[in-house]
Amino acid sequence: MTHQNPARLRAACRDGWSAPTAGHATGFTQCNLIALPRDWAWDFLLFAQRNPKPCPVLDVTEPGRFDTVLAPGADLRRDLPRYRIWRDGALAEETPDASAAWGEHPDLVTFLIGCSFTFETPLMQAGIQIRHIAQGCNVPMYRTNRDCRPAGRLSGPLVVSMRPIPADRVADAVTISGRFPAVHGAPVHVGAPDRLGIADLSRPDFGDPVTIRPDEVPVFWACGVTPQAAVMASRVPFAITHAPGHMFVTDIPDRNWQS
Amino acid sequence: MTHQNPARLRAACRDGWSAPTAGHATGFTQCNLIALPRDWAWDFLLFAQRNPKPCPVLDVTEPGRFDTVLAPGADLRRDLPRYRIWRDGALAEETPDASAAWGEHPDLVTFLIGCSFTFETPLMQAGIQIRHIAQGCNVPMYRTNRDCRPAGRLSGPLVVSMRPIPADRVADAVTISGRFPAVHGAPVHVGAPDRLGIADLSRPDFGDPVTIRPDEVPVFWACGVTPQAAVMASRVPFAITHAPGHMFVTDIPDRNWQS
Repeated sequence: MTHQNPARLRAACRDGWSAPTAGHATGFTQCNLIALPRDWAWDFLLFAQRNPKPCPVLDVTEPGRFDTVLAPGADLRRDLPRYRIWRDGALAEETPDASAAWGEHPDLVTFLIGCSFTFETPLMQAGIQIRHIAQGCNVPMYRTNRDCRPAGRLSGPLVVSMRPIPADRVADAVTISGRFPAVHGAPVHVGAPDRLGIADLSRPDFGDPVTIRPDEVPVFWACGVTPQAAVMASRVPFAITHAPGHMFVTDIPDRNWQS
Repeated sequence: MTHQNPARLRAACRDGWSAPTAGHATGFTQCNLIALPRDWAWDFLLFAQRNPKPCPVLDVTEPGRFDTVLAPGADLRRDLPRYRIWRDGALAEETPDASAAWGEHPDLVTFLIGCSFTFETPLMQAGIQIRHIAQGCNVPMYRTNRDCRPAGRLSGPLVVSMRPIPADRVADAVTISGRFPAVHGAPVHVGAPDRLGIADLSRPDFGDPVTIRPDEVPVFWACGVTPQAAVMASRVPFAITHAPGHMFVTDIPDRNWQS
């Protein structure tokens, strides 16, 4: 069963629904989330400014607030299907409700970051199959050997998502996703996973492996899980993020980001 | 006389050259500049994130530093043709060398913001005359009746630059500038200046008036002078900016920003 209405999907999350969001609420923008204590907000916003491909910021809350212009009425503490709580750079907990963790810090600043799920609908409309949707699993994501440009206390590797694309549709996938620069835009790498430091595509660092057919090329897009890799690499004392693939679904139509 | 080499233009500025930079160093990216005490940096970066059309941030310096990845070797305190020093939201001084003012605050964070001069070269290459370059004056800029989205202590009106465009080339001007979202992108308004609260195009708030011919329409782009309007409206205690039209010229080719 899929939820096609964003508000209803968020309400379902509040009631305990917890699954990857790709393929749900088709046509509405999904977001990565990271909430940090006010003291780390500058470092993170600067990190995002310096690494716009993996970290295109779509909204920033006021300190201590959990509402967003991207979905009036939403509660960012409860309206995602799954959260990760980070302590001293380590994953401490996964939970479908981050309210308790949110209560630990009165001044959390929350960043909502564009997600490549946004251009999956136009890719599918162009006849390009999105394998993880077809297989009903989470998109595969990989930590790469490319460093992000550091900012203040934050540094870490680029994380990418991967979609297998038929060789004769790679150019179309580049062109179509390139129209959405606010949600990662065009791929950062096509083929040659070893050059990104990815030894085995069947063992993603986040999400699930997908089938790659003989006529297909692995295509890599900058991924909004990059902030979580920075949280780990930089041993950030406290952070709340979405669980990879379990995004915040907004009321904003995907087409709003098309350039 | 025009300076076509960015490093030589910056050296000339250091030696006292002071004039609007439109038409100089053709093909190299020009930037708006605002330097603020560290305590105001978060408010400003958030203001820019919330108002990306007027404030597309291309680089942010470390606190107290005056170098930038956009032009290695440049000195941001001296390499612009003209600066404005702001105190308590009021223009205190215009100067070709901001070194002394820079010395007052050891923790200034400097923001370099995209400038619409970047897409003037492609517009001219498409056969569209840029009137202020043809007339050898500064681009006309206007304070509008549109408010920016506030951030922290910062608020203020949108400022726009205006170029008269022949009616049969307006679509081309939109398309061409729209390919440069990192430097203001497509216009925010075409024609109907009264709807922007501009009563008299011959009396710009910044820069110089230009001739508008009978077959031409005034076309308005979001402008990087918007931060200066926010400094005024928000009574920021201290800021250093470029003087309108007197930009920082980088080593980055304009085409790098083309989407």
